[in-house]
Amino acid sequence: MLNFSKQKYLQVTGNATALRGQIEEIVDQVSQKGFKNIFLIGSGGAIATFYPFEFMINSTSTIPAYAEIAAEFVLQNHKQFTEDSLVILSSLSGTTQETVAAAKYCKERGATTIGLTGEANKPLADTVDFPIVNFAENDFAGDSNQLILYFLIFGLMHKHGDFPDYVTFASQLEELPEQLLAAKEHFEAQAENFAVTYKDEPYHMVVGAGNTWGRAYSYAMCVLEEMQWIKTKSIHAAEFFHGTLELVEEDTSMLLLKGEDEARPLMERVERFAERYTKKLTIIDTKDIELPGISEEFRQYLSPIVISTLLQRISVHLEDKRNHSLEIRRYYRTVAY
Amino acid sequence: MLNFSKQKYLQVTGNATALRGQIEEIVDQVSQKGFKNIFLIGSGGAIATFYPFEFMINSTSTIPAYAEIAAEFVLQNHKQFTEDSLVILSSLSGTTQETVAAAKYCKERGATTIGLTGEANKPLADTVDFPIVNFAENDFAGDSNQLILYFLIFGLMHKHGDFPDYVTFASQLEELPEQLLAAKEHFEAQAENFAVTYKDEPYHMVVGAGNTWGRAYSYAMCVLEEMQWIKTKSIHAAEFFHGTLELVEEDTSMLLLKGEDEARPLMERVERFAERYTKKLTIIDTKDIELPGISEEFRQYLSPIVISTLLQRISVHLEDKRNHSLEIRRYYRTVAY
Repeated sequence: MLNFSKQKYLQVTGNATALRGQIEEIVDQVSQKGFKNIFLIGSGGAIATFYPFEFMINSTSTIPAYAEIAAEFVLQNHKQFTEDSLVILSSLSGTTQETVAAAKYCKERGATTIGLTGEANKPLADTVDFPIVNFAENDFAGDSNQLILYFLIFGLMHKHGDFPDYVTFASQLEELPEQLLAAKEHFEAQAENFAVTYKDEPYHMVVGAGNTWGRAYSYAMCVLEEMQWIKTKSIHAAEFFHGTLELVEEDTSMLLLKGEDEARPLMERVERFAERYTKKLTIIDTKDIELPGISEEFRQYLSPIVISTLLQRISVHLEDKRNHSLEIRRYYRTVAY
Repeated sequence: MLNFSKQKYLQVTGNATALRGQIEEIVDQVSQKGFKNIFLIGSGGAIATFYPFEFMINSTSTIPAYAEIAAEFVLQNHKQFTEDSLVILSSLSGTTQETVAAAKYCKERGATTIGLTGEANKPLADTVDFPIVNFAENDFAGDSNQLILYFLIFGLMHKHGDFPDYVTFASQLEELPEQLLAAKEHFEAQAENFAVTYKDEPYHMVVGAGNTWGRAYSYAMCVLEEMQWIKTKSIHAAEFFHGTLELVEEDTSMLLLKGEDEARPLMERVERFAERYTKKLTIIDTKDIELPGISEEFRQYLSPIVISTLLQRISVHLEDKRNHSLEIRRYYRTVAY
């Protein structure tokens, strides 16, 4: 695979699954103490990673869950947030200003805080009650974070009595990195083909629903816009039919992220529409990916991580075919604002 | 004002405020019965109208509130939704398929349902426990719906003990249509100027935050995309700095919707950035609008309706200067899908 180190990938994701024991201890401690709701707080890619988990909590558990944008959260005085809230924050660098500010805000108000980060001894890890640290480069951070969140969130739901199959699920998660690697390999030619076909495309619609919506939102914003300077519209599959559809012409690129959760029929409806009205349709369907060792009933939960691990391959090929490094920024951490 | 009937506007919005008594009766009845949370359910423009109210409930009240996309909601089996939920749905035509399906879903599960609609004797009004009907053409429906929602949502928060000033607020709301009309008149030249300047613009970023975020989302999707076939990116002001900013060049059109709520500083930050990096910056700031008769402390809540009443004037001028009717659709209610 282009610009990819298997060894590094398996190391980073393996380090994430190796945190299972530590995460389960945190789950035990915070569950024993008790909490009345969960706040998932981040910015950009971090909150986008939380959206699928918010959706899965709402589908699976009676724990109220709120995914909130860090910079807005500290201004809003959200009335569901109290000292009895459990807060999960995430910042790869551990220095994202708004997220660190949110961690401090929550801490000062007596809530219990868990922080996912790539860096120990940075402000996020230093602020929260329970740091969960796994070093990861940008390109593998998504998979690392999601693996950690599966243990954490499904562990919390399990302790709450809402997800009895946690132990089986968690054991299968430990095998997931190998499956994700195989998925990447299976997808490699498609990823390259997408980049070759669309390297000069000035605009993409990226469509998701249910637990793939957050992936659509973040791939559009954090990769296509931020890293490739390509215009996008991320649109929820159900909302697509209430406005955005009118833009579709036969040369409109549409990228559909199909998962296996409850919202799959919404994606199928967009697919039927897109097949009729555009010639530039790309579908990434988690159903096409074998995940040996993963029970059928758990596949629905894994759509976000499968989608994002595949999308990451598209990014690498876009970088290559467009001759536009994924690392260049005009503004972010380049100029002050 | 171009293509505008004062008389009709005051009639439609006056009919909305005249529903105050009926709405307060509904508030009394559902509050007496009791409910454990509020679900705000709609599609497209309807859910976008709910987003600011979800934000304001979260800032003001301890009632848990969930704004949900209708078509996804009926698939998800949301665990916070029970027979003790209060559901508010909205469909101007009263026939939006997904919203009617959601109303039936909620009814069958024993929840209490309130439906805002322009049409009696249509499926939505026929399904819900409490229809609130105000006939409105598309262009005035937004203001009508929002007026109704202010009475309804703030009335519910009041009965819950969270908004003691309801009676004063409601009396001032009755005078709001005249103020909104004056606001439109004040804004008319700016609206025309925007349309003249940007009639050939192929892409706009529309930015909002807090209780203006829903307006940014819907103006981009339901007007610029649906009614004018212009590409957009609607982006939350806090999220803008986590990806979308990289697209900004000196000829990138940015439309900023500044309100007066807690999230205003997030908009100011985008404004400072935009002033430096693009020459095509448009700011609609509710602070520029006088609202005589409205107490200073209530202005923050009214940002969404002020913004949308002003944006509606831009739509009329875009239609005119672009010679593109707001009524034409390629697909919506034109072809089957």
